[in-house]
Amino acid sequence: MPVPLVGERAEHLPRGQRQRLILRLLRRPNERPARRMLVRLHPADIAHLFPLLTPDEQSALVETLFELRLAARLLRELDGESQRRVLERLADERLAVVLRRLPAHDAVDLLERLDEARRQEVLARLEPAHATHLQNLLRYGPATAGGLMDPDVPRFQAEETVAETLERVRRLAEGRRLFYLYVVDERGHLLGIASLWHLVSAPPERKLRDIMSADVVTVRVDAPEEDVARRFGRYDLLMMPVVDEDGRLAGAITVDDVLDVVEEQATEDLYRLANLDIHEGVATAPLRSVRLRLPWLMINLATAFLAAGVVSLFEETIAKYVVLAVFMPIVAGMGGNAGTQTLTIMVRGLALGEMDLRRSASVILRQSSIGLMNGLLTGLVLAAAALVWEGNRTLAVTLFIAQTVNLTVAGLFGAAVPLALKRLQLDPALGSSIFVTTATDVGGFLCFLGTATILLARFSP
Amino acid sequence: MPVPLVGERAEHLPRGQRQRLILRLLRRPNERPARRMLVRLHPADIAHLFPLLTPDEQSALVETLFELRLAARLLRELDGESQRRVLERLADERLAVVLRRLPAHDAVDLLERLDEARRQEVLARLEPAHATHLQNLLRYGPATAGGLMDPDVPRFQAEETVAETLERVRRLAEGRRLFYLYVVDERGHLLGIASLWHLVSAPPERKLRDIMSADVVTVRVDAPEEDVARRFGRYDLLMMPVVDEDGRLAGAITVDDVLDVVEEQATEDLYRLANLDIHEGVATAPLRSVRLRLPWLMINLATAFLAAGVVSLFEETIAKYVVLAVFMPIVAGMGGNAGTQTLTIMVRGLALGEMDLRRSASVILRQSSIGLMNGLLTGLVLAAAALVWEGNRTLAVTLFIAQTVNLTVAGLFGAAVPLALKRLQLDPALGSSIFVTTATDVGGFLCFLGTATILLARFSP
Repeated sequence: MPVPLVGERAEHLPRGQRQRLILRLLRRPNERPARRMLVRLHPADIAHLFPLLTPDEQSALVETLFELRLAARLLRELDGESQRRVLERLADERLAVVLRRLPAHDAVDLLERLDEARRQEVLARLEPAHATHLQNLLRYGPATAGGLMDPDVPRFQAEETVAETLERVRRLAEGRRLFYLYVVDERGHLLGIASLWHLVSAPPERKLRDIMSADVVTVRVDAPEEDVARRFGRYDLLMMPVVDEDGRLAGAITVDDVLDVVEEQATEDLYRLANLDIHEGVATAPLRSVRLRLPWLMINLATAFLAAGVVSLFEETIAKYVVLAVFMPIVAGMGGNAGTQTLTIMVRGLALGEMDLRRSASVILRQSSIGLMNGLLTGLVLAAAALVWEGNRTLAVTLFIAQTVNLTVAGLFGAAVPLALKRLQLDPALGSSIFVTTATDVGGFLCFLGTATILLARFSP
Repeated sequence: MPVPLVGERAEHLPRGQRQRLILRLLRRPNERPARRMLVRLHPADIAHLFPLLTPDEQSALVETLFELRLAARLLRELDGESQRRVLERLADERLAVVLRRLPAHDAVDLLERLDEARRQEVLARLEPAHATHLQNLLRYGPATAGGLMDPDVPRFQAEETVAETLERVRRLAEGRRLFYLYVVDERGHLLGIASLWHLVSAPPERKLRDIMSADVVTVRVDAPEEDVARRFGRYDLLMMPVVDEDGRLAGAITVDDVLDVVEEQATEDLYRLANLDIHEGVATAPLRSVRLRLPWLMINLATAFLAAGVVSLFEETIAKYVVLAVFMPIVAGMGGNAGTQTLTIMVRGLALGEMDLRRSASVILRQSSIGLMNGLLTGLVLAAAALVWEGNRTLAVTLFIAQTVNLTVAGLFGAAVPLALKRLQLDPALGSSIFVTTATDVGGFLCFLGTATILLARFSP
């Protein structure tokens, strides 16, 4: 009896057990049961387990998949890191074979991972027309509509009849994912679209022009992928035609490609707010993680010296009232937390296009006032707690003032820093948490220790 | 000449100018030009500008849209906050009219925003069959496959011929988005799917059974939406059939609905790491923002007292060596930053299903060792800088030790806290940053001030 391994059919087996079974077979890809399984397994499932194999096992698996003509499908599904490793070990000739078997936009994704020299080597092994086609796509860059689109969508003429079009549709080699027909004029300008259902339901003698819809949401070939994702999200579309500067149809993007963009974009925001390199993940080799995190930690260290510098201005006061050192972590922690809250709201709002940049001033004012109010409220609690703990009224007043100013500063910088980065055409999340934390640390300590120096000298017992 | 307002047709107008024009018209929805525009505008575009209107303007707009039979489409597109506000002001009778015009899964989304009593009121105004249908869907909960799916997908029989099926497909009232045919047996069990292209390309006398594919990726009606999103992402699908516990077809999910899930999920991770309520956004009223952020700030305040408590243990040492207070912000800042890095990598890895929970120990070990190495490296730089600045070798050694321990603790807790929350079936991001920061603050200060107490007492000049 063949082992049930594929997709849903094996759902009744405990997931872990099933995966271990597959993994064991992947480790000996050349044996008969493994080969029988490989052709039935979804390439995404192989890709999922791929990073768990040793480099040698990975090579052997790719070798077998290559023989089975399945290597292209695996490569397309692998994560960036694994893809890069496999590409390094794959001979140019074999890579060319793989590229021939992939849809153009997947081939371009792989080519983008190679350095320029190797890319030219590999392209030289393809048929000239194919190579030129891929070269053209490579121009767009991976993070644009042009880089996301599938350029090989069938084009239909407005004057074709429904019957003629249906004849052509039937003859398409692989139309499994043909859901919309793109109607163009003789120079390739997009005139409208019709869904396959419209085609099927229309009388055979009608012309495409009469059944198509001319009101189409399109996107320019050079639009950044964020805009593409936003447009898909807003209009709930499954596909979107991509046009060049003259309105000529260049290709089409399917929403499942945008799913990856949305996920990557969100991960990017998250990573940048935490000062992480976008290429790190849980599976990254530890030494590489160290290397990727170190630069940010060094920047943070440098800016932390600013805060330390502020504190050093008040060494005398602290020497007299050591209790101030006890409350310093609270001042810094609260400012950092409130700053991160504001920053996150802003970064996400900017990413989702929920903010009008011309209203920056009002946004900054709003966030500062939220900070002010939360500063007053938490300041009261903090002051009360300090009073109970230390029994020092002057300290309590100092903490109240410092907390209020600190959280207002957190709101101010938490809003202003990402807006300023955006104005400078930079990513609003990039390094912003370091800016904001530095601002709250410096502002917080300056206010806390400054107020203390003035008040304690005057009113302390 | 009519003003070009809709979709691409107005792309040549500067975006801001176009939006201001529309906004002006939305403010006087009852005048002729506005009414003419409203029927042409995409409801998503109205929804986008909706929060910029005053409550009264919003009411007037909804009123006009209701007359134009467009209120349902707007409601579906509004963000949660605006939706809630409109629903509050809408009479039950009108809401029932709106629900009749919406697809079942959009109707359920709205019903889920009402409290139980009002929901029953509104359902009572619908036809009994419709109400029962919606009631059944409401059972699933919004964050499951059942809540995401459209239950009203046409079902086809395996023994139908291609010609018969095409006849039925043509008669569907609205088949614009019919791309796949779901084939079921007489008791409703899903047998397979066929794309519309397969149907169009097959000989008319063939049976559906012979052209369908039986190897279908499905999802259970009770699967959480995260699993649905992951499955869509992994297999690059446009639609996925949803089945009940017996394998009967319950409905289908389209990938554009999953786009929202992915976006929401990422926002959730981001928000939870920053200790924000998921319902806040840039447009939230300031007082509501204050209320939503305050609880987290209070929790943070409480835990900050732990760090303060640790520092207070060493008041004597600090009184003697005030320079320790100067370096405290650096210790706290570095630990916090390194902890957030680890935490973010972990939370994202868990969200994307990249981690095997049975390998927790090795993940924690790996992250701790990354922390250790970065601690050693940044500790060296910190010690050198302190030596130059303060000329105190004992302080430099103390800082080196503290920094190394601190960043190891950051790696340890940054990895262990989200894993522990996940084990407890909680969201791994929920409150975890507060835990981790507390751990690095307490650990960092304990080590820094503890080591200082021992070393400085012995070796200091």
